[in-house]
Amino acid sequence: MKIAVLPGDGIGPEIMTQAIRVLDVLRAEGLDMEFVEAPLGGAGYDAYGHPYPEFTQKICREADAVLLGAVGGPQYDTLDRPLRPERGLLAIRKDLGLFANLRPAVLFPELANASTLKPEVVAGLDIMIVRELTGDVYFGQPRGMRVNENGEREGFNTMVYTEAEVRRIAHVAFGIAMKRQKKLCSVDKANVLETTEFWKEIVIDVAKEYPEVELSHMYVDNAAMQLIRNPKQFDVMVTGNIFGDILSDEASMLTGSIGMLASASLNESKKGLYEPSHGSAPDIAGKNLANPLATILSAAMMMRYTFNNEAAAVRIENAVKKVLAAGYRTGDIFEPGMTRVSCSEMGDQVVAAM
Amino acid sequence: MKIAVLPGDGIGPEIMTQAIRVLDVLRAEGLDMEFVEAPLGGAGYDAYGHPYPEFTQKICREADAVLLGAVGGPQYDTLDRPLRPERGLLAIRKDLGLFANLRPAVLFPELANASTLKPEVVAGLDIMIVRELTGDVYFGQPRGMRVNENGEREGFNTMVYTEAEVRRIAHVAFGIAMKRQKKLCSVDKANVLETTEFWKEIVIDVAKEYPEVELSHMYVDNAAMQLIRNPKQFDVMVTGNIFGDILSDEASMLTGSIGMLASASLNESKKGLYEPSHGSAPDIAGKNLANPLATILSAAMMMRYTFNNEAAAVRIENAVKKVLAAGYRTGDIFEPGMTRVSCSEMGDQVVAAM
Ligand SMILES: CC(C)[C@H](C(=O)O)[C@@H](O)C(=O)O
Ligand SMILES: CC(C)[C@H](C(=O)O)[C@@H](O)C(=O)O
Repeated sequence: MKIAVLPGDGIGPEIMTQAIRVLDVLRAEGLDMEFVEAPLGGAGYDAYGHPYPEFTQKICREADAVLLGAVGGPQYDTLDRPLRPERGLLAIRKDLGLFANLRPAVLFPELANASTLKPEVVAGLDIMIVRELTGDVYFGQPRGMRVNENGEREGFNTMVYTEAEVRRIAHVAFGIAMKRQKKLCSVDKANVLETTEFWKEIVIDVAKEYPEVELSHMYVDNAAMQLIRNPKQFDVMVTGNIFGDILSDEASMLTGSIGMLASASLNESKKGLYEPSHGSAPDIAGKNLANPLATILSAAMMMRYTFNNEAAAVRIENAVKKVLAAGYRTGDIFEPGMTRVSCSEMGDQVVAAM
Repeated sequence: MKIAVLPGDGIGPEIMTQAIRVLDVLRAEGLDMEFVEAPLGGAGYDAYGHPYPEFTQKICREADAVLLGAVGGPQYDTLDRPLRPERGLLAIRKDLGLFANLRPAVLFPELANASTLKPEVVAGLDIMIVRELTGDVYFGQPRGMRVNENGEREGFNTMVYTEAEVRRIAHVAFGIAMKRQKKLCSVDKANVLETTEFWKEIVIDVAKEYPEVELSHMYVDNAAMQLIRNPKQFDVMVTGNIFGDILSDEASMLTGSIGMLASASLNESKKGLYEPSHGSAPDIAGKNLANPLATILSAAMMMRYTFNNEAAAVRIENAVKKVLAAGYRTGDIFEPGMTRVSCSEMGDQVVAAM
């Protein structure tokens, strides 16, 4: 198993170091893994003048999976747009065909207080958001700025989904629902946008192959409300790229502990990019303060989704749960009465719990 | 002052009756108001075969302001799309040029418990969301479904904003910020979408005319998170049609009492359509159970924004506050210890408090 390791920017390198230590426990026990490091985002720009340099492309294309820290930082804000760190992220998604973004929003019982929502509303929260990641208004053509036929300047983009794009993400979502509570909510704005009216039609058609899954449909504005009103009504949600961007971040924040949330972005052959849902936190970078658990849990998702190694995934997840139960907390999830630890100390604890 | 009264569907007629009773108090005291009723949405379809019939168009065009109940109902779900109730809403917005949608998200102190968020997070919440309402992917051309050059079926829409469209909504937002805490947050996805990169540039340009307003920019995914993490950081937010649809509903739900939230949609000459933020609630329609306060507060917004009658607006708002303070609650906001009232009894109380 060849794993491309992309530490990225900001806290990326520190959290990645801890995730690799955890994976090294499995390697020492005989799991065949090879790590190859490469720069992405600002680090790619610094090393090769591009946020997704050819060097990194080659390594990622040859790897079975990619583990990413985080990208971005204020020092890159003045770069030309095509050179900015987030363009590296968009480029790697497109290059590797990572169309299925899985974003779990799970509340660890020990961290229930961290939520700004009342405990009874979020206790036990466990939503899986399936976001389409390589289509929609993110990649649609034509796009840009122009002077229109009335002589006015305008900015424009194209929202678009083909039948094949909707079918494959729907299959992923139904497949995941089958392994969970068998409830899938497809989010659209079919009352206004033809793109999502089309989306809805195709999802309904794919549903015929999954008679056991209870399919519902919700408008995106209502979904944004229902996530706050009663988030536990949801099991799996599936939606397009831009609505998924918004709703998955909203759902993450319901937990109050985004430093705990992993994500996976998969292609058609289950090759995946795994990364924490949080950002690069430039303010605390290099201070050994960051929470490495989301990256460690992303490594667990890698074991599950790309390497089909459920045992290894559960082992990592259980180690994280044990460490939380024992009261260890980085600053972002610290509460009085708990033991405050650094990024590397958190890594120590998870390694010990393995 | 000529007011087009559009009760609409579901609970629309009952809540409208109470709002008119409140306005009648002002009329009886000498305020010059003429009410002309017309059907919109499903009611328009039932009466004239169209959700925004010509009869209604004529009345609305001639009126100084429009007061709307709510539109929609399950009996219209099987109609052809162009005939559905929400198309009436989109059509009246476009027809009257109602480009500026003002959506206050205000938490009444008496109703703090209704929120699913912790009281300390939402107490005192007072956000004004300014949503552009006649542009963006809602109205952009081309749009539809087609077979593309690769022979695949696809759905597509066009996201687009012209300079003039962004300028005028930015002016509205800065103007409102000037009358409040002078803090404006413009929400975009400028790291991905040229439409909103363009939006951001124009907003920055308009800001030069409002040096006293502190302008910030936030990506839409982050805004969806920040509304949950710390909603009180916001004073006024301005954004495009689709992001505004999502974020204004999310912000409403933070209060837990969407039955209390009014909205205004204004054109360039301050003609406006005023309506509650909630829907037509077909399940309780005709049962005298609905909460008329959002419609009554929409009538107050009408006094403020179209008729420049701040005194009348404040008088209505104070009457509502008094009734809440006295413990009167419709079912949607009922809590033990309070006095449960019907829709018409709530109207009685507000009329008495006037
Ligand atoms: C950085 C940005 C391009 C990216 C996105 O919008 O997809 C991010 O918000 C995410 O969700 O991974
Ligand atoms: C009913 C629908 C067309 C409408 C919209 O999306 O604008 C509604 O959600 C709203 O916000 O008023």
